[in-house]
Amino acid sequence: MGFRLGLLNPNTDMGHTEAMAGVARGVLPDGSEVLAASPERGPASIESAADAVVAAAEPLDLLRSLPPQDAYLVACFGDPGLDAARELTDAPVVGVGEAAYRAACLVAARFGVVTTLPRGIPAIQDAARRHGVGDRLAGVEALNIPVSEQGGEHPATTEAIVAAADRLAAQGAEAVVLACGGMAEVATAVQGRIGLPVCDGVAFGALLAHALWRAGLRTSSVGTYARPEAIPYRGQAFTDAPG
Amino acid sequence: MGFRLGLLNPNTDMGHTEAMAGVARGVLPDGSEVLAASPERGPASIESAADAVVAAAEPLDLLRSLPPQDAYLVACFGDPGLDAARELTDAPVVGVGEAAYRAACLVAARFGVVTTLPRGIPAIQDAARRHGVGDRLAGVEALNIPVSEQGGEHPATTEAIVAAADRLAAQGAEAVVLACGGMAEVATAVQGRIGLPVCDGVAFGALLAHALWRAGLRTSSVGTYARPEAIPYRGQAFTDAPG
Amino acid sequence: MGFRLGLLNPNTDMGHTEAMAGVARGVLPDGSEVLAASPERGPASIESAADAVVAAAEPLDLLRSLPPQDAYLVACFGDPGLDAARELTDAPVVGVGEAAYRAACLVAARFGVVTTLPRGIPAIQDAARRHGVGDRLAGVEALNIPVSEQGGEHPATTEAIVAAADRLAAQGAEAVVLACGGMAEVATAVQGRIGLPVCDGVAFGALLAHALWRAGLRTSSVGTYARPEAIPYRGQAFTDAPG
Amino acid sequence: MGFRLGLLNPNTDMGHTEAMAGVARGVLPDGSEVLAASPERGPASIESAADAVVAAAEPLDLLRSLPPQDAYLVACFGDPGLDAARELTDAPVVGVGEAAYRAACLVAARFGVVTTLPRGIPAIQDAARRHGVGDRLAGVEALNIPVSEQGGEHPATTEAIVAAADRLAAQGAEAVVLACGGMAEVATAVQGRIGLPVCDGVAFGALLAHALWRAGLRTSSVGTYARPEAIPYRGQAFTDAPG
Amino acid sequence: MGFRLGLLNPNTDMGHTEAMAGVARGVLPDGSEVLAASPERGPASIESAADAVVAAAEPLDLLRSLPPQDAYLVACFGDPGLDAARELTDAPVVGVGEAAYRAACLVAARFGVVTTLPRGIPAIQDAARRHGVGDRLAGVEALNIPVSEQGGEHPATTEAIVAAADRLAAQGAEAVVLACGGMAEVATAVQGRIGLPVCDGVAFGALLAHALWRAGLRTSSVGTYARPEAIPYRGQAFTDAPG
Amino acid sequence: MGFRLGLLNPNTDMGHTEAMAGVARGVLPDGSEVLAASPERGPASIESAADAVVAAAEPLDLLRSLPPQDAYLVACFGDPGLDAARELTDAPVVGVGEAAYRAACLVAARFGVVTTLPRGIPAIQDAARRHGVGDRLAGVEALNIPVSEQGGEHPATTEAIVAAADRLAAQGAEAVVLACGGMAEVATAVQGRIGLPVCDGVAFGALLAHALWRAGLRTSSVGTYARPEAIPYRGQAFTDAPG
Repeated sequence: MGFRLGLLNPNTDMGHTEAMAGVARGVLPDGSEVLAASPERGPASIESAADAVVAAAEPLDLLRSLPPQDAYLVACFGDPGLDAARELTDAPVVGVGEAAYRAACLVAARFGVVTTLPRGIPAIQDAARRHGVGDRLAGVEALNIPVSEQGGEHPATTEAIVAAADRLAAQGAEAVVLACGGMAEVATAVQGRIGLPVCDGVAFGALLAHALWRAGLRTSSVGTYARPEAIPYRGQAFTDAPG
Repeated sequence: MGFRLGLLNPNTDMGHTEAMAGVARGVLPDGSEVLAASPERGPASIESAADAVVAAAEPLDLLRSLPPQDAYLVACFGDPGLDAARELTDAPVVGVGEAAYRAACLVAARFGVVTTLPRGIPAIQDAARRHGVGDRLAGVEALNIPVSEQGGEHPATTEAIVAAADRLAAQGAEAVVLACGGMAEVATAVQGRIGLPVCDGVAFGALLAHALWRAGLRTSSVGTYARPEAIPYRGQAFTDAPG
Repeated sequence: MGFRLGLLNPNTDMGHTEAMAGVARGVLPDGSEVLAASPERGPASIESAADAVVAAAEPLDLLRSLPPQDAYLVACFGDPGLDAARELTDAPVVGVGEAAYRAACLVAARFGVVTTLPRGIPAIQDAARRHGVGDRLAGVEALNIPVSEQGGEHPATTEAIVAAADRLAAQGAEAVVLACGGMAEVATAVQGRIGLPVCDGVAFGALLAHALWRAGLRTSSVGTYARPEAIPYRGQAFTDAPG
Repeated sequence: MGFRLGLLNPNTDMGHTEAMAGVARGVLPDGSEVLAASPERGPASIESAADAVVAAAEPLDLLRSLPPQDAYLVACFGDPGLDAARELTDAPVVGVGEAAYRAACLVAARFGVVTTLPRGIPAIQDAARRHGVGDRLAGVEALNIPVSEQGGEHPATTEAIVAAADRLAAQGAEAVVLACGGMAEVATAVQGRIGLPVCDGVAFGALLAHALWRAGLRTSSVGTYARPEAIPYRGQAFTDAPG
Repeated sequence: MGFRLGLLNPNTDMGHTEAMAGVARGVLPDGSEVLAASPERGPASIESAADAVVAAAEPLDLLRSLPPQDAYLVACFGDPGLDAARELTDAPVVGVGEAAYRAACLVAARFGVVTTLPRGIPAIQDAARRHGVGDRLAGVEALNIPVSEQGGEHPATTEAIVAAADRLAAQGAEAVVLACGGMAEVATAVQGRIGLPVCDGVAFGALLAHALWRAGLRTSSVGTYARPEAIPYRGQAFTDAPG
Repeated sequence: MGFRLGLLNPNTDMGHTEAMAGVARGVLPDGSEVLAASPERGPASIESAADAVVAAAEPLDLLRSLPPQDAYLVACFGDPGLDAARELTDAPVVGVGEAAYRAACLVAARFGVVTTLPRGIPAIQDAARRHGVGDRLAGVEALNIPVSEQGGEHPATTEAIVAAADRLAAQGAEAVVLACGGMAEVATAVQGRIGLPVCDGVAFGALLAHALWRAGLRTSSVGTYARPEAIPYRGQAFTDAPG
């Protein structure tokens, strides 16, 4: 039987959810299934820390709401709720942000990041350091175009991504990371234009989840990612995880 | 007119909320007021990443629910929702975790941390690095006693904290950080027992918020902590911040 | 009874000493007292490492010369003699350099520094790393104006600080640190001009010292900051500390 | 058509080469092919830096000797010649050392490493830092058993690995990395014994190479991994790469 | 009896070998002898990682081929084979790359590096970090002139080095490192032109090797640099070291 | 004419000054001269930060008091006043602390440090990081024997150093650094006992100063180490440097 991936989009933009599921389906081996979910309430995109904390618990609820999958992908570049999701299951859980950084560092010594808004640049620099790849970050360029205008149906955004990638190449980037799940759809088109590898965490993240599953690796159930202790939750039930 | 501090406890344990407010009132200058709030639903304590993401949006809601204060204190050692809260107001916002680390580094070259459960040790090491004090962390000792059994009414916990502090001193700690708001009540008692400074982020955090306010420093409204862009929120209203 | 702060200026510029004492008095709670002292011999400002080592022992002598205070502030941005002063007393001792870095990191994710001379830029970068905030330093801009021309009576200097702050904002600074005690007087004026928090270590450092004192935190007497061993001093008496 | 992986073993132990090829074939999707190669001369295992430099050029020669593959795996934990191999092809090239570190960090917050000889411990600590995962390394334990006694036919070695993994768990490891391609065969057996994820870079590295290929990512041809300049080679031909 | 230095050039450019030996002889104390060797086959210069791994084993063979010397210098800026050479002898072994970084940090707080080709810039940044001097690196400038056109007989190269050094000074460099053994010959001339110390690892490396020898310091024979274990070498003899 | 070294001991223990001068004379090439100086007032040894700041200006005064030398050695392990001394002369200036760390890293991958008192351990860890060798520090062991009981005439101290070195070897040290100029005399004896390189910064520092001088390298006169600006000194003359 094939590989079953649960794609958890913490935001409420179902169009992006479907587009990302399509990207994942397009790269996973034959016979794989992708079950994508997004919450019914909350931000349609995550552009600030305020949006991120509102959305951070959604991957947990989505994970609990799905039938158990072989692996999960948290499909938002900031990886909100990723560690929490790992506590709830011993299936592998991968974030698209970490996946994109990893991809870049496997094909290039230096990479640059294209993001949506300038306010997010320090957070991306900090995330790169947390992921251990800060020394390989050549630069971050912001498009000044919000998440809602990302995707295949916005050709002006694609042009802006190409221009930003060129600026990053001039700063020494040997590969480019797209810092928004909504950019996943255009990754291949951008790569064709700029002559550098373009790393989209949705495609590579889905494959990374598959790789962990095939290698027989499960999230550690000891220490940091052990199941949460059952503590009182007021006004809502504490629900332990699937498996 | 005096200083008004909003103390935002992301968890639902109102007993701890009140105890922490008492600690803050006990150290702030005369004429200060502390308005403490905690959410009506959610975890009674934060012991896992799952608990933390569920609670992370509460400081925002609490902040919006209070009349504007001069400064705010996010009163949970993991500082959930701290950066998000900073986006919503230009009043200073301080977290008790960062406050405790800062206090320790002002009075000692090396410090140790007493925490509740072993599962949280890597997260504390990572937080110390993120706060730039990882090189000064002599060790972390876990009590194996949950948050619910912290506080002045649990003398066995106090004994365990003293024993853990002694183990940290043997590892080179010159000061001790208490990694739980619920421990704030016993900080003075522990300090009297061990002969090392005992840093509780509630007392020092309240004073740090006061210090920023008195110095005329407000959270930057440029870049990372600028007000969030107004994006669509499905099923709930996007509400901008007080101020 | 109120808080008594000993302000120790390692250099001999009594005008700056008085100006800094005024800044501290202006922000401390009512009933606080500031006793300021500066040495009778030595450099009128500290612009090189040579000046710094000549002045580094002054905080110790000044500290010994004053009646015991509740806390002390070493009032020179390079924090000369700070660790040494901590050995001599268990009262809290704060440096204006560390205070300014701390303030900036509590109100902004990235900050820039305005300093006097270009020669000092590497030392500021190194100090930021030592204080654990190197990753948050957006840039350092030098005025090319010496310490002697800092202060409220030099309007051209104020203009130059504003211009330097604008350059730092273009490099991503979300707050600005003034790297000279002599700039403390104009911090508020500069802040009004540039729309970013302006962090002066004199005001915030005085409040930080107050915060430690109110929180009941004393400098650790174990390890690094223990009293110095009594060793032979040739040609001068070894004098142990107040307290 | 299926995925074709070139497995390049820099040492001359053809038994381990075949065992590793078997591990890779066991995890890759149906229809994949693994073409394994090892050199005719050189060390039978790599246990010192001297062995490593002798073997470091082998991956290049092996890569040139094979028909072009979709991706390559350098199959020795020290990743000798990995960057060099990346210069010779735009197909993805993965090293089993980097793959094992990556796997561990996707399933655990802290990991430990089991290696063969104590002399290699500092090199493993350094490699972990170079890969950006030094802060997540809980410890390294050496078996004091050489590479030649690794593999499924040495049950005493398996027992020693289990014991070393237990020591690592006591140091905080939440997953275990096996620092020798020759250990790949027993990874599953060890995992069954110790209750922690056991990360073998051969299985996961093969899948990582597959993931890059499926995601359409190729090694960057710009900058660090650009084709080598043609310079004079004395006594041997300079041969450019396949691709 | 005088000091005997073995200069091991991993590449086959005997002209550069002789030029570097001349530089070393010019600075070592009277009575010193320099025995220089380079391999009979392999790259005439090292400009890529592929060249480097081909040449990396040469220092070992050269070291074995010479009569025992008091100390050795690996004379290629990338320090290929340096750690391996240290395993084979307890005489001190120094690399010209590490020597040049050390020299720069002894005479300046910030330094810049002049290298041959842009492709090598990330590798130099990484090496500086590995050597613990990454925070002191002000910049790297590439000449776009290959190794074969370095040396005293290429005046245009010297002009280009001077221009690159000026660009580095504008970035804050207080000293300049020449990242190519072939540049050693012109170091003095460049220093005369630019007013900054110019650090060539050949001259300083030879003196560093001498300093270790005179101080009675030998390469540690314990741990990392212990003699290699005797393992089977297929198709070639395993030969242990001189010493 | 031979090399002239100015050895500047910041403390007043003339016995140690002479012993260190003897060590330096013993290793420098024939024809070298060592002119040693120590101050007339101040601490007889440096065991605390308070002692260090009192002594920090002495190297400047000593340097000015001597006839110009070819190079200088600041002969106290904490390197007090080293950067300041570099501002006053363009002759090379080396510190015995930095020299000892450098020596250890040239002959071993990991080293340990033997120091006098436990209080100094954090300062040594911090210095190792500042020197970029923190990742190579295997441990620090304190003798609990003050500086005044160091030297050849204290055989019990030598035994204690040997025992501490053995403890460091068990922690992975492959070489040992002696963190006190007063230990220089016994370095060779200790090395003979423990089978690891023993790095004393006096011998190696003198040779390092010689190496810089022979290589024609002078302290940079641009930026950090430029001559100090002439500013008013109250109660004492500002005196610029020799050279």
